[in-house]
Amino acid sequence: MLSRRNPQLNSHGELIHLLSIEGLPRAVLTQILDTASTFLAVGEREVKKVPLLRGKSVFNLFFENSTRTRTTFEIAAKRLSADVINLDIARSSTAKGESLLDTIANLSAMQADMFVVRHSESGAPYLIAQHCAPHVHVVNAGDGRHAHPTQGLLDMYTIRHFKKDFTNLTVAIVGDIVHSRVARSDIHALTTLGVPEIRAVGPKTLVPDNLREMGVRVCRDMAEGIRDADVIIMLRLQNERMTGALLPSAGEFFKHYGLTEEKLALARPDAIVMHPGPINRGVEIDSAVADGRHSVILPQVTFGIAVRMAVMSILAGNEA
Amino acid sequence: MLSRRNPQLNSHGELIHLLSIEGLPRAVLTQILDTASTFLAVGEREVKKVPLLRGKSVFNLFFENSTRTRTTFEIAAKRLSADVINLDIARSSTAKGESLLDTIANLSAMQADMFVVRHSESGAPYLIAQHCAPHVHVVNAGDGRHAHPTQGLLDMYTIRHFKKDFTNLTVAIVGDIVHSRVARSDIHALTTLGVPEIRAVGPKTLVPDNLREMGVRVCRDMAEGIRDADVIIMLRLQNERMTGALLPSAGEFFKHYGLTEEKLALARPDAIVMHPGPINRGVEIDSAVADGRHSVILPQVTFGIAVRMAVMSILAGNEA
Amino acid sequence: MLSRRNPQLNSHGELIHLLSIEGLPRAVLTQILDTASTFLAVGEREVKKVPLLRGKSVFNLFFENSTRTRTTFEIAAKRLSADVINLDIARSSTAKGESLLDTIANLSAMQADMFVVRHSESGAPYLIAQHCAPHVHVVNAGDGRHAHPTQGLLDMYTIRHFKKDFTNLTVAIVGDIVHSRVARSDIHALTTLGVPEIRAVGPKTLVPDNLREMGVRVCRDMAEGIRDADVIIMLRLQNERMTGALLPSAGEFFKHYGLTEEKLALARPDAIVMHPGPINRGVEIDSAVADGRHSVILPQVTFGIAVRMAVMSILAGNEA
Repeated sequence: MLSRRNPQLNSHGELIHLLSIEGLPRAVLTQILDTASTFLAVGEREVKKVPLLRGKSVFNLFFENSTRTRTTFEIAAKRLSADVINLDIARSSTAKGESLLDTIANLSAMQADMFVVRHSESGAPYLIAQHCAPHVHVVNAGDGRHAHPTQGLLDMYTIRHFKKDFTNLTVAIVGDIVHSRVARSDIHALTTLGVPEIRAVGPKTLVPDNLREMGVRVCRDMAEGIRDADVIIMLRLQNERMTGALLPSAGEFFKHYGLTEEKLALARPDAIVMHPGPINRGVEIDSAVADGRHSVILPQVTFGIAVRMAVMSILAGNEA
Repeated sequence: MLSRRNPQLNSHGELIHLLSIEGLPRAVLTQILDTASTFLAVGEREVKKVPLLRGKSVFNLFFENSTRTRTTFEIAAKRLSADVINLDIARSSTAKGESLLDTIANLSAMQADMFVVRHSESGAPYLIAQHCAPHVHVVNAGDGRHAHPTQGLLDMYTIRHFKKDFTNLTVAIVGDIVHSRVARSDIHALTTLGVPEIRAVGPKTLVPDNLREMGVRVCRDMAEGIRDADVIIMLRLQNERMTGALLPSAGEFFKHYGLTEEKLALARPDAIVMHPGPINRGVEIDSAVADGRHSVILPQVTFGIAVRMAVMSILAGNEA
Repeated sequence: MLSRRNPQLNSHGELIHLLSIEGLPRAVLTQILDTASTFLAVGEREVKKVPLLRGKSVFNLFFENSTRTRTTFEIAAKRLSADVINLDIARSSTAKGESLLDTIANLSAMQADMFVVRHSESGAPYLIAQHCAPHVHVVNAGDGRHAHPTQGLLDMYTIRHFKKDFTNLTVAIVGDIVHSRVARSDIHALTTLGVPEIRAVGPKTLVPDNLREMGVRVCRDMAEGIRDADVIIMLRLQNERMTGALLPSAGEFFKHYGLTEEKLALARPDAIVMHPGPINRGVEIDSAVADGRHSVILPQVTFGIAVRMAVMSILAGNEA
């Protein structure tokens, strides 16, 4: 999907689009995380309002509905003082038979500075980045099963916040990896940032063997998967994306892979528990764990605003 | 529904949520009305733009659709220079099976400073106020048949604007009180502000006898109800909320309780006629009255913006 | 439809509503075009952000959905620093049986400074302009088949930008004129600005004979229509508005009237090709022409933002 030269970087190696964590150098990831931290007030509970994107127009192009993700980008853009335009693409000219590329050309000509794109088809943000006007930056807010890079980045921010250093960590990603755009983004980021042990935990139907090609240790057994882990990333069981008879029922899944306090006791005593949300209580995670002292699920949400602000402000400063 | 300590007030007796007029002391009501008047330019036709909520994020959480009410809150928040996020809750994560409280926790973590909540179930804003993060303020924009406190407050603002003093007034509330969240809010506010005579006017099916327990004089006869009234509050016949065979037809209702110029002549010569809108012309009110010199229906709308600004700016200044 | 005195102008001849180009004097058209140019940065590729409407509220009232047009007005208003309120009219009080004029009166009382109105019925913006509060300005964003004045104005801006002078031009408007609100606006504007030859090109079903009454030369033959033209305005084949058996198929239309490079060779060597968008590639215009060196379709979009800013800023400065 990537062309020979990484389409996310200009000739100086600066970020001009955020399409995928795959292919981003460690220096760029670190720049994003460092920039994000400047947007959080002391205590990291509050996000600042800054004028970095004043006069810029951010267009939210959600070809697939996702109120939660759109909201986080809208807040981030408004915290940067940008003008935000939400486009209900499903009802727009595309419906009148206009092609995606004509829509993009028109929106570019309307003085868009940034497109935040959510699309059900993998690669759509790449196509848009290749064809939009040179003054427009594209941020992938989730494309099919492919990538969700800002979620991956906020996960990295969260891990760094609580664990300081990546290079001695064991990170377990548990559950529905095959349907998850988050898992792929996380694995790329963790690898680039030097995490020595990444485990993918789940049954064959959700955690395919070929993940080993990404340098991941595949664990079919939950106890093996989370033993001595520093970080446990639970994934949402994507019932709405699943089809086929071989998939586990929610009850069956919880019995084997659902994170309970009992299972969590196998991890390191200071382990953190993450989840991209929205959580299915009693399916992939027990309420006692979701609301417990190891859970950093809500800080992830706050950090997500700061990370999206960081991505947008970095992109706005770079030229194609 | 109220816990022992009023959840709307902090330990200093300051307003931290606006959930219902019930239980609010007269001093708080007066503070809101006084603050509202500072947002109206001389002549009280124009609302000022002020930076009191700059950098704050107001989330409109409309679980039940109400374009009119959402718009008034959106305008009020923008006049205060807040960032406004409109959430189409019906299509969001709640639909993916996330619980209301998990949605609220997530939105709190997204740096919300205020939730404006509209919900079809009575008490939903209380539940949200009890469980949201301490930095978030909740405004009830209408919950079931229970309360609609900003409408009640704008009604009080309107009465004070035109009548100056509450303590010598006769106020008649006419029509569909049983289905009206406005009527309950008005009765609480009028009582707290010292109005000596509050009348509820209508047939048994719309004006139940037990309203007497609230200190209200129940009148089945329209002439008795509005004779010598200073203020007449006509309510919308909520056809869309009504079920059952005992309810009046629109024509029948208008004959007995619809406000005509003829009936209005029974009230005081300087009586004002109010209505929360949208009006049903020829059902609860004759066009000649709605557009006549006693009508203050449109000033109510303008005052509503100033009152909502007052509520939001007061809340933003107080800590839980 | 126009009352004796033009409802768009105050007694000083200043623009207070933009309802139609019909009846606007040349001086007003020129003022709009001149003002628009001040919002474009050198090179005319970028639109500036200015505080001319700070503190003003612009309401987008789209009774008919048009994401593209709504977006251009939203961007223009935000570039002027206005607060923008998007109203989903189809789901609002109108649906509760409130009349259009009551809705308008209420929105006026909510401190609206400007209504941008799109409506499927011709004349609706006139009705609104006649009945809204005197402090509200109305902009017609398209009413039925009647008018779409800002599209007409951006077309004039585009022609002036590329051709400098109107008084020696031949302009051909090709295609579905009968269903087009754009064509009527263009013909009025071109006439007022002194274009000596305006041609309407197409079959009888789309280009009626009575256009001659507007001073237009009607051409049934495409070669005759575009020969030596300086400007060719292609219209969208409005399949979604068409009914009846006499209409051409897309293939048939393209054969006779679709703009190809071969046909374009008949026009002047420096001719420009315009289209209001969204384009139907291979129906009214060949891709090679749409993307070719004569095409100014995308600059039209950029100029459209500046022209809408100009209209709104001029209206905001004038009093009824």
